[in-house]
Amino acid sequence: MEKKQIGLNFFIPMPVVLVGTNVGGKDNFMTVGWCARANASPPMILCGIGNHHYTSKGITETKTFSINIPSPDLLEKTDYCGLVSGEKTDKSRVFDVFYGTLKTAPMITECPVNLECRLVQTVPLPTNTLYIGEIVGAYADSRVINEGKPNFPEINPLFLTMPDNRYWTLGKYAGDAWNAGKPLMQQGQKIEPVTVNE
Amino acid sequence: MEKKQIGLNFFIPMPVVLVGTNVGGKDNFMTVGWCARANASPPMILCGIGNHHYTSKGITETKTFSINIPSPDLLEKTDYCGLVSGEKTDKSRVFDVFYGTLKTAPMITECPVNLECRLVQTVPLPTNTLYIGEIVGAYADSRVINEGKPNFPEINPLFLTMPDNRYWTLGKYAGDAWNAGKPLMQQGQKIEPVTVNE
Repeated sequence: MEKKQIGLNFFIPMPVVLVGTNVGGKDNFMTVGWCARANASPPMILCGIGNHHYTSKGITETKTFSINIPSPDLLEKTDYCGLVSGEKTDKSRVFDVFYGTLKTAPMITECPVNLECRLVQTVPLPTNTLYIGEIVGAYADSRVINEGKPNFPEINPLFLTMPDNRYWTLGKYAGDAWNAGKPLMQQGQKIEPVTVNE
Repeated sequence: MEKKQIGLNFFIPMPVVLVGTNVGGKDNFMTVGWCARANASPPMILCGIGNHHYTSKGITETKTFSINIPSPDLLEKTDYCGLVSGEKTDKSRVFDVFYGTLKTAPMITECPVNLECRLVQTVPLPTNTLYIGEIVGAYADSRVINEGKPNFPEINPLFLTMPDNRYWTLGKYAGDAWNAGKPLMQQGQKIEPVTVNE
């Protein structure tokens, strides 16, 4: 397969989350695709947000935020929260909100999983800022937890791809992590690359 | 739906990438799930890696790394690269490798998309480090690019969920981003939360 150069502004497939903040005393939610775990212990998660977003103002003010995982039944509202800014539009009534131990990180009842985070570090970059938060509370609907573990098909998370700008569901089970590659461990150094058709 | 508290160490669904480095002159690949875009312009991407990984050594040495997106046909090898450390096992022959403009960021020919990155910032956290790289080269198999845009079902990326430790494929198209929520913009402030069954 021939490789060709493509535009540098490539986006890997992204999990879709709603970032909850309280800005000037009012709850606000923003759709974010730049979100990943940042530290194992203590558990930290990060989100990358454009420097001039209203959400950034909320995180800076309260030093807290929430991460909420929407399912496809919330797709319209999720997309809406990415279309309009809290600066001009009041998004405080879009969802049913609950609070955990932090009193300034509103969480979305309709989302099956919610994390409340205390800001630990801010990483300013040219056009965006990374907000790294320690997860201090985690909540889930009872139906999405089986034997203490999250059931991801039940959580039914969304993904976003760009620049085609499409949402996707979680697909099929493809294999067990830290297990599927074990047969190759026996082969060790003898593993050879797949022959590539030129 | 009743909310219950779950363990704080929750992981959002993660895109699976292979991070390529050159450590002490030898190519090495590590499976990583903590990867997200970090900055819009210039385009930057980040990966979070445990502090004592061999890959960290390579990034620190060369100030470069690559991000490669594997498809399910590479699942065994991808998992293998997460099971064994380059410190003890030579992973330089697991894949067919090519180089772009950077001479120390090996990319995987078998992966449909490859990004070569120049390290711009390191964010040390208690147990992990974030490596933020500027994307200086992006490559794709011609078959996964349609009309200049990446075709994600064709790229066929993998996702990882934890702590159930499973790989997943990309699911079904669920809606158009920056579009599906437009009907709600007309309603404006009148949007009401879905009634939640207590």
